Amino acid sequence: MSKQKPSIPKGMRDFGPTEMARRNYILDTIKDTFRLFGFDQLETPAMENLSTLTGKYGDEGDQLLFKVLNSGEFLKKVSETDFNNGESVVLPLLAEKGLRYDLTVPFARYVVMHQNEISFPFKRFQMQPVWRADRPQKGRYREFYQCDADVVGTDSLICEAEIISMIKRVFAVFGLNEYTIHINNRKILSGIAEVAGEAGKESELCVAIDKLDKIGRKKVEEELSQKGFPAKALAALAPILDLPDRSNSEWLVFLKEYLRQSAVGANGLEELEEVLSFLSLMGEDEHYLKLDPVLARGLSYYTGAIFEVKVGGVGIGSVSGGGRYDNLTGVFGLPDISGVGFSFGVDRLYDVLDALDLFPQQQPDSTQLLLAHFGEEERKQGVKLLAAFRKAGISSEIYPDLAKIKKQFNHADKKNIPFVGVLGSEELASGTLSLKDMNTGNQETLSLEKAISRIKGADQDLA
Amino acid sequence: MSKQKPSIPKGMRDFGPTEMARRNYILDTIKDTFRLFGFDQLETPAMENLSTLTGKYGDEGDQLLFKVLNSGEFLKKVSETDFNNGESVVLPLLAEKGLRYDLTVPFARYVVMHQNEISFPFKRFQMQPVWRADRPQKGRYREFYQCDADVVGTDSLICEAEIISMIKRVFAVFGLNEYTIHINNRKILSGIAEVAGEAGKESELCVAIDKLDKIGRKKVEEELSQKGFPAKALAALAPILDLPDRSNSEWLVFLKEYLRQSAVGANGLEELEEVLSFLSLMGEDEHYLKLDPVLARGLSYYTGAIFEVKVGGVGIGSVSGGGRYDNLTGVFGLPDISGVGFSFGVDRLYDVLDALDLFPQQQPDSTQLLLAHFGEEERKQGVKLLAAFRKAGISSEIYPDLAKIKKQFNHADKKNIPFVGVLGSEELASGTLSLKDMNTGNQETLSLEKAISRIKGADQDLA
Repeated sequence: MSKQKPSIPKGMRDFGPTEMARRNYILDTIKDTFRLFGFDQLETPAMENLSTLTGKYGDEGDQLLFKVLNSGEFLKKVSETDFNNGESVVLPLLAEKGLRYDLTVPFARYVVMHQNEISFPFKRFQMQPVWRADRPQKGRYREFYQCDADVVGTDSLICEAEIISMIKRVFAVFGLNEYTIHINNRKILSGIAEVAGEAGKESELCVAIDKLDKIGRKKVEEELSQKGFPAKALAALAPILDLPDRSNSEWLVFLKEYLRQSAVGANGLEELEEVLSFLSLMGEDEHYLKLDPVLARGLSYYTGAIFEVKVGGVGIGSVSGGGRYDNLTGVFGLPDISGVGFSFGVDRLYDVLDALDLFPQQQPDSTQLLLAHFGEEERKQGVKLLAAFRKAGISSEIYPDLAKIKKQFNHADKKNIPFVGVLGSEELASGTLSLKDMNTGNQETLSLEKAISRIKGADQDLA
Repeated sequence: MSKQKPSIPKGMRDFGPTEMARRNYILDTIKDTFRLFGFDQLETPAMENLSTLTGKYGDEGDQLLFKVLNSGEFLKKVSETDFNNGESVVLPLLAEKGLRYDLTVPFARYVVMHQNEISFPFKRFQMQPVWRADRPQKGRYREFYQCDADVVGTDSLICEAEIISMIKRVFAVFGLNEYTIHINNRKILSGIAEVAGEAGKESELCVAIDKLDKIGRKKVEEELSQKGFPAKALAALAPILDLPDRSNSEWLVFLKEYLRQSAVGANGLEELEEVLSFLSLMGEDEHYLKLDPVLARGLSYYTGAIFEVKVGGVGIGSVSGGGRYDNLTGVFGLPDISGVGFSFGVDRLYDVLDALDLFPQQQPDSTQLLLAHFGEEERKQGVKLLAAFRKAGISSEIYPDLAKIKKQFNHADKKNIPFVGVLGSEELASGTLSLKDMNTGNQETLSLEKAISRIKGADQDLA
């Protein structure tokens, strides 16, 4: 074994104590909310059969799958002719498994495999890393967490209302106020295509409309023309493409009239209104909620509601999105399972909370107390007290070595530990400890009991 | 996309809601303990460079590493000559990354890469899946969680005492009483070799002694003879190999005399006594703790304390183990970092708690209430109440569809939800709900407030 300078693969990250505490804060907040709403957790293996993954994410997705080399004699099945025929022939002979690319396909696979045990409607959440062989760049990694919640086996619009309610709860816990939940319905988009006289071309319409933000109305109209939308259609679409600044209720009034001739459009609008009415029954106002009849999210598999959450002011964009789909499991042989789901972008939420300085100063799960000592006997006394602090539920540690007191304080400082309990000969004699609050610099000589309640009190002040 | 019957790779598992709740119970209990003792969480990527992994786990380990095919044109670097030279030549050209095989090597890599940011002593824990291309069999999987805690950068024996204290705390929370923490010290084994006149042959001695449990004393003696231990050595070893049933203090008295001539042995014994004395300062008695001077764990990299935890009566064996090592990071170019660590076998603990029926009946994080309804208006009322139950912190859901009441009750039953709140026309008129306790079968008509406190009360009874 030669000595080597170690490194990690590009696009991958280590999560040290601070990053972990912050990521746990995000995941735990979301998890608590999912559980409060009756969602059960699911985990699927990191590896799936390539037959499960391939063809589900388009050609580009297939390229980005990480493939796992068959174990043992992996060349056994590859002949020299195969080898000379190149990657596409060799790949299926070398690799039968790939790494999870998202949480949706494994979930669909799970539902189909366990359809006889599952009690539908099935509310599940899943928080696991996924892997994509994408070109790494700022904010884009080859390993990242996804965080999905879905309900399958019901078309009740209560689920859509609950998704909105969950998003609002999570953001309220984070203290995040500058955001907008955009909501639309695929059927409204279909209705708009019908009204434009281009029924069935909603897909082209969606693709073009999806670019409104980026390329502007004129270019969108050009694209629509190129795709065969006549001038008459563009005229009919004008009141939509104008993107006038309408309130939710103004949009509802407008769309009721605009979609009058389209059965599917009117149906989409009814669904949207029903979602709003369930929300209102839940005691939620429409704050943060923006009806956005051009929201398409580019994803052609949505069949009903479409959501997207954007955070303002930090240049990070979409942090959550989702929608209803009617055929999640069809590709695995189980048709007609309707579901609705959404996901939080954990890395983006991390960047948002960081940019807005919304992470709690003191993570509830980090060490609260370091015991420092001036010598052998003081250290023994420290070990005794340590057990008492822990019994009281205070995360605590003792500096294990006999070392200069400055070194011990530096350790507390670097680990961001808010309290240091110092044990010197005086404290040893009087059975006390000298408790230093590292934030204020205050230091007091206290009994064990007083020290416990002081630390717990500080903890409550922060909570 | 043709329809296909989906499956998962062999040796891999899905974790459905029940398994997840139980596994979370195990991991959360361990995590709480690690944090109480001042350990910080770390996560490393699923993929490591093969140069980091290869050669760290022996030849057999190298075989069992899952390798990830290079992305893009993976055959680019492979010539026809390479191809004809077989796997060992082709492998490094096809694959540069492998999947995490354990948590120790990635931790060592992390410590070396981050040595300038880390404040030593560094207490870290890590709970992540690892992957091994082992032949799957009962209780052995190709993907499984490991759960490690280590302290590096100190040789203080407080750390050893804390490990024992953590194990005892975790098992106390589980309600697990039938277990033994075996403890030894590598230096005691070295001392025993010296006393036998075979200094430096402790490795052969360890390998043979490690089999005492399985093959018995006679076969162990045969093996030692074959390895060149003369009759005189075997005679000197007799008081050890007899495995007399000595108490901890009897062993200490015996070893003090037995190891008198061996400096290293006497040192090992002193270390062991110091660990016990720190434990006693922590207020821990020696219950569950068994001094076991033949415990070797087969792992040659332990240099000081050695631990192993065995659970009695369920035929599952070792559920935790660890020890002190003096050169974790040497292979990556950072010598002389002493550390001590241990790990819990999560799958085995799962099987133990299952066999002993020690999982909590009702998982704290599962749904506590399902609202069921007799029709459209009752469902609306349910949606209203739902928000109130959730605001009170009760994990709850409403059956989202209009369905027969029996179907709704079946759903609660299958999901193991302990309370069903029924809304019929009477409840609607009186603003109440009919709360059924699914365990006792009792049903009462209650106001919202009363229902909340009834459910919360039941929750406290269980806690």
